[in-house]
Amino acid sequence: MTKRSTSTVRQAPLATASSVTGPMVIDADTVTIETVERIELVDLTGRLTAFVAAAGVREGVLSVWSLHTTCAVFINEVQRALHADIKRVLEEIVDRETDWMHNDPKESDCDRCNADAHLRAMLLGHSLTLQVSGGELVLGQWQRVLAAELDGPRTRTLRLQILGIGSAGR
Amino acid sequence: MTKRSTSTVRQAPLATASSVTGPMVIDADTVTIETVERIELVDLTGRLTAFVAAAGVREGVLSVWSLHTTCAVFINEVQRALHADIKRVLEEIVDRETDWMHNDPKESDCDRCNADAHLRAMLLGHSLTLQVSGGELVLGQWQRVLAAELDGPRTRTLRLQILGIGSAGR
Amino acid sequence: MTKRSTSTVRQAPLATASSVTGPMVIDADTVTIETVERIELVDLTGRLTAFVAAAGVREGVLSVWSLHTTCAVFINEVQRALHADIKRVLEEIVDRETDWMHNDPKESDCDRCNADAHLRAMLLGHSLTLQVSGGELVLGQWQRVLAAELDGPRTRTLRLQILGIGSAGR
Repeated sequence: MTKRSTSTVRQAPLATASSVTGPMVIDADTVTIETVERIELVDLTGRLTAFVAAAGVREGVLSVWSLHTTCAVFINEVQRALHADIKRVLEEIVDRETDWMHNDPKESDCDRCNADAHLRAMLLGHSLTLQVSGGELVLGQWQRVLAAELDGPRTRTLRLQILGIGSAGR
Repeated sequence: MTKRSTSTVRQAPLATASSVTGPMVIDADTVTIETVERIELVDLTGRLTAFVAAAGVREGVLSVWSLHTTCAVFINEVQRALHADIKRVLEEIVDRETDWMHNDPKESDCDRCNADAHLRAMLLGHSLTLQVSGGELVLGQWQRVLAAELDGPRTRTLRLQILGIGSAGR
Repeated sequence: MTKRSTSTVRQAPLATASSVTGPMVIDADTVTIETVERIELVDLTGRLTAFVAAAGVREGVLSVWSLHTTCAVFINEVQRALHADIKRVLEEIVDRETDWMHNDPKESDCDRCNADAHLRAMLLGHSLTLQVSGGELVLGQWQRVLAAELDGPRTRTLRLQILGIGSAGR
Protein backbone atom coordinates (compact mmCIF):
# COMPACT_ATOMS: atom_id res chain seq x y z
CA MET A 1 0.00 0.00 0.00
CA THR A 2 1.39 3.37 -0.93
CA LYS A 3 0.50 6.83 0.07
CA ARG A 4 -1.54 7.29 -3.07
CA SER A 5 -3.73 4.36 -2.18
CA THR A 6 -4.91 6.00 1.02
CA SER A 7 -8.42 7.27 0.73
CA THR A 8 -9.10 10.82 1.75
CA VAL A 9 -11.44 11.45 4.60
CA ARG A 10 -11.93 15.07 3.72
CA GLN A 11 -10.03 17.48 1.51
CA ALA A 12 -10.80 20.53 3.59
CA PRO A 13 -12.33 21.12 6.98
CA LEU A 14 -15.91 22.23 7.23
CA ALA A 15 -16.26 25.76 8.42
CA THR A 16 -19.14 26.52 10.74
CA ALA A 17 -20.67 29.73 9.47
CA SER A 18 -22.08 30.73 12.81
CA SER A 19 -22.60 29.31 16.27
CA VAL A 20 -25.25 26.68 16.88
CA THR A 21 -27.24 26.18 20.08
CA GLY A 22 -29.36 23.35 21.41
CA PRO A 23 -29.75 20.61 23.98
CA MET A 24 -26.78 18.33 24.48
CA VAL A 25 -26.77 14.81 23.03
CA ILE A 26 -24.36 12.09 24.20
CA ASP A 27 -23.90 8.61 22.80
CA ALA A 28 -21.26 5.96 23.42
CA ASP A 29 -20.07 2.61 22.18
CA THR A 30 -17.05 0.35 22.38
CA VAL A 31 -14.81 -0.93 19.59
CA THR A 32 -12.90 -4.20 19.96
CA ILE A 33 -9.77 -5.05 18.01
CA GLU A 34 -7.86 -8.32 17.82
CA THR A 35 -4.15 -7.90 17.26
CA VAL A 36 -1.74 -10.55 15.97
CA GLU A 37 1.69 -8.92 16.39
CA ARG A 38 3.43 -7.66 19.53
CA ILE A 39 3.57 -4.15 18.04
CA GLU A 40 0.81 -3.42 15.56
CA LEU A 41 -0.91 -0.31 14.26
CA VAL A 42 -4.64 -0.55 13.59
CA ASP A 43 -6.50 2.08 11.57
CA LEU A 44 -9.65 2.95 13.53
CA THR A 45 -10.85 5.70 11.19
CA GLY A 46 -13.52 3.70 9.35
CA ARG A 47 -15.10 2.49 12.57
CA LEU A 48 -15.06 6.00 14.01
CA THR A 49 -16.67 7.58 10.97
CA ALA A 50 -19.38 4.89 11.03
CA PHE A 51 -20.06 5.56 14.71
CA VAL A 52 -20.24 9.32 14.10
CA ALA A 53 -22.57 8.86 11.12
CA ALA A 54 -24.96 6.74 13.23
CA ALA A 55 -24.87 8.89 16.35
CA GLY A 56 -26.91 11.80 15.10
CA VAL A 57 -24.65 14.52 16.47
CA ARG A 58 -24.17 17.39 14.03
CA GLU A 59 -21.58 19.52 15.88
CA GLY A 60 -19.50 18.30 18.80
CA VAL A 61 -16.57 16.18 19.87
CA LEU A 62 -15.67 12.49 19.76
CA SER A 63 -13.56 10.99 22.53
CA VAL A 64 -11.60 7.83 21.67
CA TRP A 65 -10.26 6.15 24.81
CA SER A 66 -8.07 3.04 24.99
CA LEU A 67 -9.01 1.09 28.12
CA HIS A 68 -5.51 -0.39 28.41
CA THR A 69 -2.18 0.91 29.73
CA THR A 70 -0.21 -0.74 26.89
CA CYS A 71 -2.43 0.25 23.94
CA ALA A 72 -2.17 3.82 22.66
CA VAL A 73 -4.27 6.01 20.35
CA PHE A 74 -2.70 8.63 18.10
CA ILE A 75 -2.85 10.44 14.76
CA ASN A 76 -0.74 9.67 11.72
CA GLU A 77 -0.89 8.68 8.10
CA VAL A 78 -1.71 5.15 6.96
CA GLN A 79 1.22 3.89 4.93
CA ARG A 80 3.03 0.56 5.28
CA ALA A 81 6.51 2.08 5.06
CA LEU A 82 5.76 4.79 7.62
CA HIS A 83 4.27 2.26 10.02
CA ALA A 84 7.51 0.29 9.88
CA ASP A 85 9.32 3.50 10.81
CA ILE A 86 6.93 4.17 13.71
CA LYS A 87 7.63 0.71 15.15
CA ARG A 88 11.36 1.24 14.66
CA VAL A 89 11.47 4.62 16.40
CA LEU A 90 9.46 3.28 19.36
CA GLU A 91 11.93 0.41 19.67
CA GLU A 92 14.84 2.85 19.48
CA ILE A 93 13.50 5.35 22.02
CA VAL A 94 12.48 2.67 24.56
CA ASP A 95 14.71 -0.40 24.54
CA ARG A 96 12.80 -3.61 25.30
CA GLU A 97 15.79 -5.51 26.72
CA THR A 98 17.04 -3.01 29.30
CA ASP A 99 16.84 -4.20 32.91
CA TRP A 100 13.58 -2.38 33.65
CA MET A 101 12.51 -2.82 37.28
CA HIS A 102 8.95 -3.65 36.18
CA ASN A 103 10.35 -6.78 34.50
CA ASP A 104 12.30 -7.93 37.57
CA PRO A 105 10.47 -10.71 39.47
CA LYS A 106 12.10 -9.51 42.72
CA GLU A 107 10.56 -6.04 42.27
CA SER A 108 7.28 -6.75 40.51
CA ASP A 109 4.81 -9.62 40.41
CA CYS A 110 3.78 -8.55 36.93
CA ASP A 111 3.29 -11.68 34.83
CA ARG A 112 4.24 -9.95 31.57
CA CYS A 113 7.68 -8.43 31.09
CA ASN A 114 6.20 -5.45 29.32
CA ALA A 115 7.83 -2.35 30.78
CA ASP A 116 8.70 -1.23 27.26
CA ALA A 117 5.01 -1.36 26.29
CA HIS A 118 4.00 0.84 29.24
CA LEU A 119 6.72 3.38 28.43
CA ARG A 120 6.00 3.47 24.70
CA ALA A 121 2.27 3.94 25.28
CA MET A 122 3.04 6.79 27.67
CA LEU A 123 4.87 8.64 24.88
CA LEU A 124 2.03 8.18 22.35
CA GLY A 125 -0.88 8.78 24.73
CA HIS A 126 -4.01 6.74 25.38
CA SER A 127 -6.74 8.97 24.02
CA LEU A 128 -7.81 11.58 21.52
CA THR A 129 -10.62 14.12 21.55
CA LEU A 130 -11.60 14.83 17.94
CA GLN A 131 -13.92 17.42 16.45
CA VAL A 132 -17.21 16.59 14.73
CA SER A 133 -18.78 19.05 12.28
CA GLY A 134 -21.63 18.68 9.80
CA GLY A 135 -22.19 15.18 11.21
CA GLU A 136 -18.67 14.09 10.14
CA LEU A 137 -15.34 13.59 11.85
CA VAL A 138 -12.97 16.50 11.20
CA LEU A 139 -9.62 15.16 9.95
CA GLY A 140 -6.95 16.53 7.69
CA GLN A 141 -6.40 14.97 4.27
CA TRP A 142 -3.76 12.47 5.44
CA GLN A 143 -4.79 12.11 9.05
CA ARG A 144 -6.02 8.78 10.33
CA VAL A 145 -6.79 7.66 13.89
CA LEU A 146 -4.53 4.76 14.82
CA ALA A 147 -4.50 2.37 17.75
CA ALA A 148 -1.02 1.18 18.71
CA GLU A 149 -0.90 -2.32 20.14
CA LEU A 150 2.34 -2.39 22.10
CA ASP A 151 2.07 -5.72 23.93
CA GLY A 152 0.11 -8.01 21.62
CA PRO A 153 -1.30 -10.20 20.46
CA ARG A 154 -4.34 -9.28 22.55
CA THR A 155 -7.97 -8.31 22.41
CA ARG A 156 -8.27 -4.58 23.00
CA THR A 157 -11.30 -2.42 23.76
CA LEU A 158 -11.64 1.27 23.01
CA ARG A 159 -14.54 3.36 24.23
CA LEU A 160 -16.07 5.96 21.93
CA GLN A 161 -18.14 8.81 23.27
CA ILE A 162 -19.74 11.50 21.14
CA LEU A 163 -21.08 14.67 22.69
CA GLY A 164 -22.64 17.65 20.99
CA ILE A 165 -25.71 19.20 19.42
CA GLY A 166 -28.00 16.79 17.61
CA SER A 167 -29.06 16.83 13.99
CA ALA A 168 -32.18 18.79 13.07
CA GLY A 169 -35.34 16.87 13.83
CA ARG A 170 -33.99 14.98 16.83
CA MET B 1 3.46 -2.02 46.57
CA THR B 2 2.94 -4.61 43.90
CA LYS B 3 0.65 -4.75 40.96
CA ARG B 4 -1.74 -7.01 42.83
CA SER B 5 -2.17 -4.40 45.55
CA THR B 6 -3.53 -1.87 43.09
CA SER B 7 -7.23 -1.42 43.47
CA THR B 8 -9.39 -1.64 40.39
CA VAL B 9 -11.38 1.37 39.35
CA ARG B 10 -13.64 -0.64 37.09
CA GLN B 11 -13.39 -4.09 35.56
CA ALA B 12 -15.27 -3.20 32.39
CA PRO B 13 -16.48 0.03 30.85
CA LEU B 14 -20.07 1.00 31.16
CA ALA B 15 -21.94 0.79 27.92
CA THR B 16 -24.50 3.45 27.19
CA ALA B 17 -27.53 1.68 25.85
CA SER B 18 -28.81 4.63 23.89
CA SER B 19 -28.16 8.32 23.53
CA VAL B 20 -29.13 10.74 26.26
CA THR B 21 -30.23 14.34 25.82
CA GLY B 22 -30.55 17.26 28.19
CA PRO B 23 -29.26 20.66 29.23
CA MET B 24 -25.53 20.99 29.73
CA VAL B 25 -24.03 21.07 33.21
CA ILE B 26 -20.48 22.32 33.91
CA ASP B 27 -18.62 22.27 37.20
CA ALA B 28 -14.97 22.93 38.04
CA ASP B 29 -12.50 22.77 40.87
CA THR B 30 -8.77 22.80 41.49
CA VAL B 31 -6.56 20.15 43.05
CA THR B 32 -3.29 21.06 44.76
CA ILE B 33 -0.40 18.66 45.26
CA GLU B 34 2.81 19.12 47.25
CA THR B 35 5.77 17.24 45.84
CA VAL B 36 8.95 16.35 47.70
CA GLU B 37 11.22 14.96 44.96
CA ARG B 38 12.53 16.60 41.80
CA ILE B 39 10.78 13.93 39.69
CA GLU B 40 7.74 12.42 41.33
CA LEU B 41 4.59 10.69 40.12
CA VAL B 42 1.37 11.44 42.00
CA ASP B 43 -1.74 9.32 41.56
CA LEU B 44 -4.66 11.73 41.07
CA THR B 45 -7.30 9.07 40.46
CA GLY B 46 -8.91 9.12 43.92
CA ARG B 47 -9.30 12.88 43.88
CA LEU B 48 -10.76 12.79 40.36
CA THR B 49 -13.31 10.08 41.18
CA ALA B 50 -14.36 12.06 44.28
CA PHE B 51 -14.81 15.20 42.19
CA VAL B 52 -16.84 13.31 39.58
CA ALA B 53 -19.02 11.69 42.24
CA ALA B 54 -19.82 15.10 43.77
CA ALA B 55 -20.37 16.95 40.50
CA GLY B 56 -23.71 15.45 39.54
CA VAL B 57 -22.86 14.83 35.89
CA ARG B 58 -24.10 11.45 34.63
CA GLU B 59 -22.63 11.38 31.09
CA GLY B 60 -19.89 13.69 29.89
CA VAL B 61 -16.19 14.45 29.98
CA LEU B 62 -13.67 15.46 32.63
CA SER B 63 -10.77 17.71 31.70
CA VAL B 64 -7.67 17.54 33.91
CA TRP B 65 -5.31 20.43 33.23
CA SER B 66 -1.90 21.06 34.80
CA LEU B 67 -1.39 24.80 35.17
CA HIS B 68 2.40 24.46 34.92
CA THR B 69 4.84 24.00 32.04
CA THR B 70 6.98 21.52 34.02
CA CYS B 71 4.21 19.35 35.50
CA ALA B 72 2.57 16.78 33.19
CA VAL B 73 -0.59 14.66 33.34
CA PHE B 74 -0.74 11.19 31.81
CA ILE B 75 -2.16 7.67 32.06
CA ASN B 76 -0.32 4.66 33.37
CA GLU B 77 -0.44 1.94 35.99
CA VAL B 78 0.40 2.59 39.63
CA GLN B 79 3.29 0.33 40.56
CA ARG B 80 6.49 1.30 42.40
CA ALA B 81 8.76 -0.62 40.02
CA LEU B 82 7.14 0.81 36.89
CA HIS B 83 7.34 4.34 38.26
CA ALA B 84 11.08 3.89 38.73
CA ASP B 85 11.24 2.87 35.06
CA ILE B 86 9.21 5.91 33.99
CA LYS B 87 11.66 8.24 35.77
CA ARG B 88 14.58 6.37 34.24
CA VAL B 89 13.29 6.56 30.68
CA LEU B 90 12.54 10.27 31.01
CA GLU B 91 16.10 10.83 32.24
CA GLU B 92 17.46 8.77 29.34
CA ILE B 93 15.40 10.45 26.60
CA VAL B 94 16.12 14.00 27.84
CA ASP B 95 19.50 14.43 29.49
CA ARG B 96 19.49 16.94 32.35
CA GLU B 97 23.16 17.87 32.09
CA THR B 98 23.38 18.73 28.38
CA ASP B 99 24.23 22.36 27.63
CA TRP B 100 20.62 23.40 27.01
CA MET B 101 20.34 27.06 25.95
CA HIS B 102 17.50 27.59 28.44
CA ASN B 103 20.01 26.88 31.24
CA ASP B 104 22.64 29.32 29.96
CA PRO B 105 22.59 32.62 31.89
CA LYS B 106 23.88 34.43 28.78
CA GLU B 107 20.83 33.25 26.79
CA SER B 108 18.09 33.09 29.39
CA ASP B 109 17.26 34.90 32.59
CA CYS B 110 15.42 31.86 33.83
CA ASP B 111 16.22 31.39 37.51
CA ARG B 112 15.84 27.59 37.41
CA CYS B 113 18.06 25.46 35.17
CA ASN B 114 15.11 23.29 34.23
CA ALA B 115 15.23 22.83 30.46
CA ASP B 116 15.00 19.06 30.98
CA ALA B 117 11.74 19.50 32.90
CA HIS B 118 10.20 21.56 30.08
CA LEU B 119 11.24 18.98 27.48
CA ARG B 120 10.11 15.97 29.49
CA ALA B 121 6.70 17.51 30.20
CA MET B 122 6.31 18.24 26.48
CA LEU B 123 6.68 14.52 25.74
CA LEU B 124 4.11 13.47 28.36
CA GLY B 125 1.59 16.24 27.78
CA HIS B 126 -0.07 18.63 30.22
CA SER B 127 -3.69 17.52 30.11
CA LEU B 128 -6.19 14.71 29.64
CA THR B 129 -9.84 14.71 28.65
CA LEU B 130 -11.48 11.65 30.19
CA GLN B 131 -14.92 10.15 29.71
CA VAL B 132 -17.59 10.07 32.42
CA SER B 133 -20.43 7.55 32.23
CA GLY B 134 -23.03 6.48 34.76
CA GLY B 135 -21.70 9.21 37.03
CA GLU B 136 -18.25 7.55 37.14
CA LEU B 137 -14.88 8.11 35.52
CA VAL B 138 -14.28 5.65 32.65
CA LEU B 139 -10.89 3.98 33.11
CA GLY B 140 -9.51 0.61 32.15
CA GLN B 141 -8.73 -1.92 34.85
CA TRP B 142 -5.09 -0.85 35.33
CA GLN B 143 -5.36 2.76 34.21
CA ARG B 144 -4.67 5.54 36.69
CA VAL B 145 -4.36 9.29 36.10
CA LEU B 146 -0.91 10.44 37.13
CA ALA B 147 0.63 13.87 37.57
CA ALA B 148 4.34 13.99 36.80
CA GLU B 149 6.27 16.50 38.83
CA LEU B 150 9.38 17.16 36.75
CA ASP B 151 10.98 20.11 38.58
CA GLY B 152 10.07 19.66 42.24
CA PRO B 153 9.73 19.95 45.06
CA ARG B 154 6.92 22.40 44.39
CA THR B 155 3.29 23.11 45.04
CA ARG B 156 1.29 22.31 41.90
CA THR B 157 -2.27 23.14 40.91
CA LEU B 158 -4.41 21.20 38.47
CA ARG B 159 -7.79 22.43 37.27
CA LEU B 160 -10.64 19.95 36.91
CA GLN B 161 -13.64 20.72 34.72
CA ILE B 162 -16.57 18.37 34.21
CA LEU B 163 -19.05 18.96 31.42
CA GLY B 164 -22.05 16.86 30.43
CA ILE B 165 -25.64 15.93 31.13
CA GLY B 166 -26.70 16.02 34.75
CA SER B 167 -28.12 13.25 36.86
CA ALA B 168 -31.89 12.80 36.85
CA GLY B 169 -33.62 15.25 39.16
CA ARG B 170 -31.18 18.08 38.66
CA MET C 1 13.19 37.65 24.13
CA THR C 2 13.65 36.51 27.68
CA LYS C 3 11.36 34.80 30.07
CA ARG C 4 10.60 38.11 31.75
CA SER C 5 9.31 39.56 28.50
CA THR C 6 6.61 36.94 28.21
CA SER C 7 3.21 38.36 28.95
CA THR C 8 1.08 36.57 31.46
CA VAL C 9 -2.26 35.20 30.34
CA ARG C 10 -3.52 34.71 33.85
CA GLN C 11 -1.84 34.62 37.23
CA ALA C 12 -4.28 32.18 38.77
CA PRO C 13 -7.06 30.00 37.41
CA LEU C 14 -10.62 31.10 37.79
CA ALA C 15 -12.53 29.00 40.24
CA THR C 16 -16.13 28.21 39.39
CA ALA C 17 -18.06 28.73 42.59
CA SER C 18 -20.86 26.37 41.62
CA SER C 19 -22.09 24.44 38.63
CA VAL C 20 -23.74 26.22 35.72
CA THR C 21 -26.48 24.80 33.48
CA GLY C 22 -27.86 25.84 30.12
CA PRO C 23 -28.23 25.03 26.44
CA MET C 24 -25.07 24.09 24.61
CA VAL C 25 -23.36 26.58 22.28
CA ILE C 26 -20.79 25.54 19.65
CA ASP C 27 -18.73 27.75 17.40
CA ALA C 28 -15.77 27.02 15.14
CA ASP C 29 -13.18 28.71 12.98
CA THR C 30 -9.87 27.99 11.31
CA VAL C 31 -6.48 29.63 11.86
CA THR C 32 -3.86 29.66 9.11
CA ILE C 33 -0.15 30.05 9.72
CA GLU C 34 2.68 30.53 7.21
CA THR C 35 5.97 29.06 8.32
CA VAL C 36 9.41 29.94 6.97
CA GLU C 37 11.70 27.36 8.61
CA ARG C 38 11.66 23.55 8.36
CA ILE C 39 11.15 23.33 12.13
CA GLU C 40 9.41 26.33 13.63
CA LEU C 41 7.36 27.00 16.74
CA VAL C 42 4.43 29.40 16.39
CA ASP C 43 2.68 30.87 19.42
CA LEU C 44 -1.08 30.49 18.81
CA THR C 45 -2.17 31.86 22.19
CA GLY C 46 -3.16 35.34 21.04
CA ARG C 47 -5.31 34.00 18.21
CA LEU C 48 -6.97 31.50 20.54
CA THR C 49 -7.78 34.08 23.20
CA ALA C 50 -9.26 36.35 20.51
CA PHE C 51 -11.41 33.50 19.22
CA VAL C 52 -12.61 32.64 22.72
CA ALA C 53 -13.41 36.28 23.49
CA ALA C 54 -15.53 36.56 20.33
CA ALA C 55 -17.31 33.23 20.67
CA GLY C 56 -19.59 34.08 23.55
CA VAL C 57 -19.02 30.86 25.51
CA ARG C 58 -18.68 31.47 29.25
CA GLU C 59 -17.80 27.98 30.51
CA GLY C 60 -16.66 25.14 28.27
CA VAL C 61 -13.78 23.70 26.28
CA LEU C 62 -11.74 24.78 23.26
CA SER C 63 -10.40 22.14 20.88
CA VAL C 64 -7.35 23.09 18.81
CA TRP C 65 -6.76 20.62 15.98
CA SER C 66 -3.89 20.60 13.49
CA LEU C 67 -5.19 19.32 10.15
CA HIS C 68 -1.76 17.99 9.17
CA THR C 69 0.23 14.88 10.07
CA THR C 70 3.51 16.82 10.28
CA CYS C 71 2.32 19.83 12.29
CA ALA C 72 1.83 19.35 16.04
CA VAL C 73 0.11 21.35 18.80
CA PHE C 74 1.43 21.39 22.35
CA ILE C 75 1.91 23.42 25.53
CA ASN C 76 5.11 25.10 26.62
CA GLU C 77 6.64 28.42 27.53
CA VAL C 78 7.51 31.05 24.93
CA GLN C 79 11.22 31.76 25.21
CA ARG C 80 13.78 31.90 22.40
CA ALA C 81 16.37 29.82 24.24
CA LEU C 82 13.88 27.14 25.22
CA HIS C 83 12.54 26.91 21.67
CA ALA C 84 16.07 26.22 20.44
CA ASP C 85 16.24 23.40 23.00
CA ILE C 86 12.88 21.99 21.84
CA LYS C 87 14.13 21.82 18.25
CA ARG C 88 17.38 20.25 19.40
CA VAL C 89 15.72 17.53 21.49
CA LEU C 90 13.35 16.64 18.64
CA GLU C 91 16.33 16.31 16.32
CA GLU C 92 18.13 14.15 18.87
CA ILE C 93 15.20 11.82 19.63
CA VAL C 94 14.28 11.30 15.96
CA ASP C 95 17.23 11.44 13.58
CA ARG C 96 16.38 12.96 10.19
CA GLU C 97 19.11 11.16 8.23
CA THR C 98 18.41 7.55 9.29
CA ASP C 99 17.32 5.24 6.47
CA TRP C 100 13.61 5.52 7.27
CA MET C 101 11.50 3.31 4.99
CA HIS C 102 9.08 6.20 4.37
CA ASN C 103 11.95 8.06 2.65
CA ASP C 104 12.92 5.13 0.40
CA PRO C 105 11.55 5.56 -3.16
CA LYS C 106 11.40 1.76 -3.51
CA GLU C 107 9.06 1.51 -0.51
CA SER C 108 7.08 4.74 -0.68
CA ASP C 109 5.90 7.11 -3.38
CA CYS C 110 5.90 9.93 -0.90
CA ASP C 111 7.30 13.02 -2.62
CA ARG C 112 8.76 14.48 0.57
CA CYS C 113 11.42 12.64 2.56
CA ASN C 114 9.78 13.63 5.81
CA ALA C 115 9.64 10.50 7.98
CA ASP C 116 11.29 12.45 10.79
CA ALA C 117 8.48 15.03 10.69
CA HIS C 118 5.81 12.32 11.01
CA LEU C 119 7.62 10.72 13.94
CA ARG C 120 8.32 13.99 15.76
CA ALA C 121 4.70 15.14 15.42
CA MET C 122 3.56 11.77 16.80
CA LEU C 123 5.56 12.42 19.98
CA LEU C 124 4.16 15.94 20.48
CA GLY C 125 0.56 15.23 19.47
CA HIS C 126 -1.72 16.96 16.99
CA SER C 127 -4.36 18.50 19.24
CA LEU C 128 -5.26 19.98 22.60
CA THR C 129 -8.54 20.34 24.42
CA LEU C 130 -8.32 23.39 26.69
CA GLN C 131 -10.65 24.69 29.35
CA VAL C 132 -12.62 27.94 29.06
CA SER C 133 -13.92 29.68 32.19
CA GLY C 134 -15.36 33.13 32.74
CA GLY C 135 -15.19 33.60 28.97
CA GLU C 136 -11.40 33.19 28.99
CA LEU C 137 -8.93 30.46 28.13
CA VAL C 138 -7.60 28.74 31.25
CA LEU C 139 -3.79 28.64 31.12
CA GLY C 140 -1.10 28.64 33.75
CA GLN C 141 1.13 31.68 34.16
CA TRP C 142 3.84 30.46 31.75
CA GLN C 143 1.74 28.20 29.53
CA ARG C 144 1.32 29.06 25.88
CA VAL C 145 -0.28 27.03 23.07
CA LEU C 146 2.32 26.34 20.40
CA ALA C 147 2.07 24.90 16.90
CA ALA C 148 5.15 22.95 15.86
CA GLU C 149 5.90 23.11 12.15
CA LEU C 150 8.03 20.03 11.52
CA ASP C 151 8.23 19.97 7.72
CA GLY C 152 8.12 23.61 6.61
CA PRO C 153 8.06 26.03 5.12
CA ARG C 154 4.34 25.47 4.51
CA THR C 155 0.91 26.94 4.97
CA ARG C 156 -0.81 25.21 7.85
CA THR C 157 -4.44 25.20 8.98
CA LEU C 158 -5.69 24.56 12.48
CA ARG C 159 -9.36 24.16 13.33
CA LEU C 160 -10.71 25.73 16.50
CA GLN C 161 -13.96 24.57 18.06
CA ILE C 162 -15.46 26.00 21.23
CA LEU C 163 -18.24 24.20 23.04
CA GLY C 164 -19.98 25.13 26.26
CA ILE C 165 -22.58 27.27 27.98
CA GLY C 166 -23.09 30.72 26.52
CA SER C 167 -22.74 34.06 28.18
CA ALA C 168 -25.79 35.49 29.91
CA GLY C 169 -28.14 37.15 27.46
CA ARG C 170 -27.43 34.89 24.51
